[in-house]
Amino acid sequence: MRQFIVLGHDAPTTPDFSLDDLAGGAGRLDVLCRCVNSAFFLSHAIREDVEVHLVLRDEVTVRFDGSELRRLNPDERSTAALIRGALEEKAEAIGHMEAESSPGVHISKRGFEAVLEEAARDGTVVQLHEDGDPVADVEPPADPVFVVSDHHDFGDDEESLLADAADARVRLGPELLHADHAITVAHNYLDTEGFTRY
Amino acid sequence: MRQFIVLGHDAPTTPDFSLDDLAGGAGRLDVLCRCVNSAFFLSHAIREDVEVHLVLRDEVTVRFDGSELRRLNPDERSTAALIRGALEEKAEAIGHMEAESSPGVHISKRGFEAVLEEAARDGTVVQLHEDGDPVADVEPPADPVFVVSDHHDFGDDEESLLADAADARVRLGPELLHADHAITVAHNYLDTEGFTRY
Repeated sequence: MRQFIVLGHDAPTTPDFSLDDLAGGAGRLDVLCRCVNSAFFLSHAIREDVEVHLVLRDEVTVRFDGSELRRLNPDERSTAALIRGALEEKAEAIGHMEAESSPGVHISKRGFEAVLEEAARDGTVVQLHEDGDPVADVEPPADPVFVVSDHHDFGDDEESLLADAADARVRLGPELLHADHAITVAHNYLDTEGFTRY
Repeated sequence: MRQFIVLGHDAPTTPDFSLDDLAGGAGRLDVLCRCVNSAFFLSHAIREDVEVHLVLRDEVTVRFDGSELRRLNPDERSTAALIRGALEEKAEAIGHMEAESSPGVHISKRGFEAVLEEAARDGTVVQLHEDGDPVADVEPPADPVFVVSDHHDFGDDEESLLADAADARVRLGPELLHADHAITVAHNYLDTEGFTRY
């Protein structure tokens, strides 16, 4: 399985935001929606072997599970509506237990540390870093976990948790990419088994 | 320069659409907006050496020029507003002459054939095709022109124009990608000089 953890530093943790202002009042939820899009969509299919964890302000996590996912559309607005639907069910999520708000969309009251720890148990954490090894030189792991951040850089605490958990540190190219573009490149790297199988 | 021609088969050619319904009433304009995003955005910069031509129903073309572009934001809604602003200036575009609606955004009454012909004059047309050569085996051209289609496949006429103009035919991986994801992978291929420079 491929897992993507996306940190939303300004993202809402309650459902009282407008779908008309995702890039403003909704704390750049547009970025997170595009990450969900990049993680799941193929031209005529959903990638079923993918999980996305949107960590909202280190308090709440919305998990999208490709194997169960229904009603996901590519546009930002409808994905934001799924996230809003999850936030409406937040009270149902007790402790670290999840609640399911729509097929394949789950919410829990977990922050980055707990989410990363669980993901790392099932997979190989690959840190994206400008000083990392060229990704083309690194053998793709079977069950990679990538962590990306929204429009903000990682905080020091996040950087340190990630460095501790990381099994590899790679860079995707000479340019620094938006989180959703990084996910697309990571998929291409995995799809092609390190740019060798086309 | 890197050029991307994006064919919008259902896209509006008049400005009377709602920003609240990009994936519905606005003929999947969301797809085209994401293509603009993928073409231009780096983490903290705009790619200035890029041009995007959005061909709307083979009638109208909105051209984004990275070297002059201002007021572009990553979210779909604000990009759709720039396209709507361009469509409001359509009457100012006479024959094949362009009108500029905001800095770096131009509109003309040109269809795919005219746009492709002009792009091919300045660049090397690279056709994305599932039977093409693995892109990793193809030397990146200095001034590539990529053509992608929205949620519809290319029509027979489009396919034939493209095949005639194409200098190379490549595939980006074993999976068929959405147009905006294909643009991201194409950029990564070019940034890394064919996955060799990181």
